[in-house]
Amino acid sequence: MGTKEIRISGFGGQGVVLSGLILGQAASIYDNGFSALTQSYGPEARGGSCTAEVLISDEPIGYPYVQSPHILIILSQEAYNKYSDGLPADALMVIDPDLVKPNPSQKPAPLSIPATRMARDMGRTVVANIIMLGFLAAVSDVVSAEALKKSVLTSVPKGTEEFNTKAFETGYNYGLEHGSKGKVTHG
Amino acid sequence: MGTKEIRISGFGGQGVVLSGLILGQAASIYDNGFSALTQSYGPEARGGSCTAEVLISDEPIGYPYVQSPHILIILSQEAYNKYSDGLPADALMVIDPDLVKPNPSQKPAPLSIPATRMARDMGRTVVANIIMLGFLAAVSDVVSAEALKKSVLTSVPKGTEEFNTKAFETGYNYGLEHGSKGKVTHG
Repeated sequence: MGTKEIRISGFGGQGVVLSGLILGQAASIYDNGFSALTQSYGPEARGGSCTAEVLISDEPIGYPYVQSPHILIILSQEAYNKYSDGLPADALMVIDPDLVKPNPSQKPAPLSIPATRMARDMGRTVVANIIMLGFLAAVSDVVSAEALKKSVLTSVPKGTEEFNTKAFETGYNYGLEHGSKGKVTHG
Repeated sequence: MGTKEIRISGFGGQGVVLSGLILGQAASIYDNGFSALTQSYGPEARGGSCTAEVLISDEPIGYPYVQSPHILIILSQEAYNKYSDGLPADALMVIDPDLVKPNPSQKPAPLSIPATRMARDMGRTVVANIIMLGFLAAVSDVVSAEALKKSVLTSVPKGTEEFNTKAFETGYNYGLEHGSKGKVTHG
């Protein structure tokens, strides 16, 4: 399959790095691949910018940074402004439309899911990243939905598995309804 | 400072990968460095072997795997058998002596902390990895204790900060008593 490159970018406290960890773990533990995760932060630790880059491959990874992203999860306007230019034609961008206003002329148009608002409606904004991962599982083949769900369950605190499963499935079902696997639709 | 290479190895469910994430995050978010994390698993997802490799540097990391480890945290006999040979003379190995019986002739002799038993005594075995990180903060300069503690607090579930702080400090104090910073003593 070669190497899949995923960038997740937003601000501190959104679970950006944990999302990257869950994605990489899904690939390496359950899909028998390799993964590398790098993280970088802007000047302010909390509330500042935060980016995680995940590479997933069926062989050991030589260079651990995104060079040509296959998937971008963009969770702040600042991240959008920084990373939306010059994307490969087949790149899949997913945004939270309450946090990011994309350029209407952007090609390919991003997919969108209001994960933060959906998490708030569920009573716990902290699961927004899990909703987002469920969505990604529905609209992308980068890791299997089964592996991603298992990786979520081994990464969240004990006692919260049921709630996080519900969050994952909420995002997954939203993706089945509003996205289309392997295709890019309007955000 | 060049690149510091850390390997954490044990089995699934010990928090190996989360420990790596916390270490890398400590370096990149609070000590203004770069970090890369890779993870690999043995054949069985839970209960099988699990290794995380963390590289910490003051510049972007080109190759994300451990080549010559500075620090090893070894949490199973299998991991010990696999990784104890041919270590650099200045490598620091930390073991849990209830899980690992080191070769008495090994040089440098490992440091040891019964983190799993200490966590059980605290009532929650899940904090063994946090105790271990506290210990590491006391016996090594690879990241600052302050950064590591902050990284722990941003990585554990909300509501458990106090308990995890106590776990971290338990390990840290044990390290001050039984280890010696930058030196290797008998395990």
